[in-house]
Amino acid sequence: VQDRIVLELFVIFAAAWALGRAFEAVRQPAVIGELLAGVIVGPHVLGWIHLGQAQEVLAEIGVIVLLFTVGLETDLARFRPVAGPATGVAVLGIAIPFASGWGVTLLLGFGHAEALFVGTALVATSVGITARVLRDLGRLDGTEGRVILAAAVLDDVLGLAILAVVAGIATGISSPSRVALAVVEAAAFVVVLIVVGPRLARRHGRRLARLKNTRTPFVLALGLCLGLSALAEAIGLAALIGAFLAGVILSEAGEDLDLSREMNPVADLVVPFFFVVTGARLDPGVFGDAGLLGVTAAITAVAVAGKVLGGVLGARSLGARRALTVGVGMMPRGEVGILVASLGLSLGVVGDDLYGAVIAMSVVTTALAPPLLALLTRDVPGEGGSL
Amino acid sequence: VQDRIVLELFVIFAAAWALGRAFEAVRQPAVIGELLAGVIVGPHVLGWIHLGQAQEVLAEIGVIVLLFTVGLETDLARFRPVAGPATGVAVLGIAIPFASGWGVTLLLGFGHAEALFVGTALVATSVGITARVLRDLGRLDGTEGRVILAAAVLDDVLGLAILAVVAGIATGISSPSRVALAVVEAAAFVVVLIVVGPRLARRHGRRLARLKNTRTPFVLALGLCLGLSALAEAIGLAALIGAFLAGVILSEAGEDLDLSREMNPVADLVVPFFFVVTGARLDPGVFGDAGLLGVTAAITAVAVAGKVLGGVLGARSLGARRALTVGVGMMPRGEVGILVASLGLSLGVVGDDLYGAVIAMSVVTTALAPPLLALLTRDVPGEGGSL
Repeated sequence: VQDRIVLELFVIFAAAWALGRAFEAVRQPAVIGELLAGVIVGPHVLGWIHLGQAQEVLAEIGVIVLLFTVGLETDLARFRPVAGPATGVAVLGIAIPFASGWGVTLLLGFGHAEALFVGTALVATSVGITARVLRDLGRLDGTEGRVILAAAVLDDVLGLAILAVVAGIATGISSPSRVALAVVEAAAFVVVLIVVGPRLARRHGRRLARLKNTRTPFVLALGLCLGLSALAEAIGLAALIGAFLAGVILSEAGEDLDLSREMNPVADLVVPFFFVVTGARLDPGVFGDAGLLGVTAAITAVAVAGKVLGGVLGARSLGARRALTVGVGMMPRGEVGILVASLGLSLGVVGDDLYGAVIAMSVVTTALAPPLLALLTRDVPGEGGSL
Repeated sequence: VQDRIVLELFVIFAAAWALGRAFEAVRQPAVIGELLAGVIVGPHVLGWIHLGQAQEVLAEIGVIVLLFTVGLETDLARFRPVAGPATGVAVLGIAIPFASGWGVTLLLGFGHAEALFVGTALVATSVGITARVLRDLGRLDGTEGRVILAAAVLDDVLGLAILAVVAGIATGISSPSRVALAVVEAAAFVVVLIVVGPRLARRHGRRLARLKNTRTPFVLALGLCLGLSALAEAIGLAALIGAFLAGVILSEAGEDLDLSREMNPVADLVVPFFFVVTGARLDPGVFGDAGLLGVTAAITAVAVAGKVLGGVLGARSLGARRALTVGVGMMPRGEVGILVASLGLSLGVVGDDLYGAVIAMSVVTTALAPPLLALLTRDVPGEGGSL
């Protein structure tokens, strides 16, 4: 396998570029083309690439770099006005999918523990896809974009709490105090970084920009990105949350450092790996098994409806169309849903059938979001931050 | 393992940075610090990082990016004057180590097939380390730097021929016509790229620089780098030879594209992985086993003397000090020597003892080159391409 790895890297890179440009040519987000490229070259269709450790790690680096770049382009001050709707979106976007996923799985005839795991898998939001689509459309800095980013961070902290409780129930080894500790740690991580980080960045940014070795500020920025990603993961959050917060902090360090422009070439190289590997996980075969298809369709329908409803209700103060955009933007489950399903499988709580259905749900919600977002933002004039 | 991977990435990155800066502070090449960082955090000392598939692939991407960057900074026209010395260095730097490695292994009491494999492992030059050291010292564009780069490309083509013959003898499955085909393929790959590539680059470079999507030229450059790396590997050459040639070709595409500056951030992220993983392969324990130590010392001595002699004789027209610099620069065997040893082990030709000795030889020759190069180029004024 190692022998052909450079060839696989080239195949991933070239397929992402070719299909990305093809979709741009017909005025669709490039990211749909890149996901489709993954489905096509992936192990279930052409089989030109594997999903080995190296490919998974490159995909992880890709989404870390993507969210770091998004963070660098983020202006923290512009998040404060959207704190209200973002909280509503996060809380409702967790409560509704969890309850309805749990209920539907019970109705389909599965057991209580299985229903809890499916509910948990429906909670997670994988914000990478949406961030990229809104960025391609020039909407990431709009009100909807900021609500989605803030809600996704909250979502991950709350989702961690639910996963800790559910895994504790399933294994019987977790105590309430341990669960509470995990949640407090995660919340403290986010709050401390958002409060202290920008101050430190503003204080030391200018000094960094004047260093003699001109590569040092960028190398330190990369180190902060990797360090906070590792710390986020150690606490139980997604690595990409740490990368996003590192970007947000460094965006306060001043224009002189020019970190955002320097990240462009890095993102060019590694971000396609995230989208292609995400697409490669989809086995189109699940749509051929009639019995499994029913379970998959039911869970996917609840997953879509739950997040859209959460967004529409949580962000209703923004008006119907924007609230709907937020709901659709929160829809992709991506690798987070897949992680929860894998955990359930490894704990022996979830069988192969439900595992396959949750994987398919993760990929379908991820693949549906880009075209819907493109549709929803079409013909709407851009806004310079009206909220 | 996958769980802690982001933490390992951070450890590799941070350790490389810290020890690299420490060595710079005492006026030594940063790369020695990065190699040492790998030894310390690697599996044989602290054990903070593994040598799994993901780490190896990131190291491979690191050396590909390093040689691509070196190629971009290379001016093909300035290679023509050094063709003579470079050919001499490549041919003698292969013949002397091969013959002496073969002889010493026989004298140590090993068999004929084993002696052939050790000789082959002594042939390979891993040019990544030397390129980085000379670049840190601002000497890569000097006469010595150009002789070393050109000789390393020739070395790899000739080394491939020897490996094909030796592996054919060991396994008995390779025919002379197959060996000849492999060598012709490799030579044709290099010649065609060097002759045709720059012309195409000069013709289309300007047009690329005027494209509306300003990221397209850089993404196409990355694609060419990965594509030629994969092709080089498919032909049997090292992937880094393809990356170097891609860089050389694109360096002719004109200043407007600014590819070299755009590669800086990418190199900042991935190149440290190559040096840290290379260092992590060293097991300092081999120096504790007295019996193995004798074999290791003998093979390493021949490895050092063979390449230095090849360089001194091949480049004698440049004067003693420069010729010695070239010889020392050709010394590192790095991952290429390790690959040959692994192949010998997997074919059952080489036992654990010789395998360990060859690995130690690869790492020691690699670790010795940077301080010696720093010493040899000290107090010598830089030259603006006198040859």
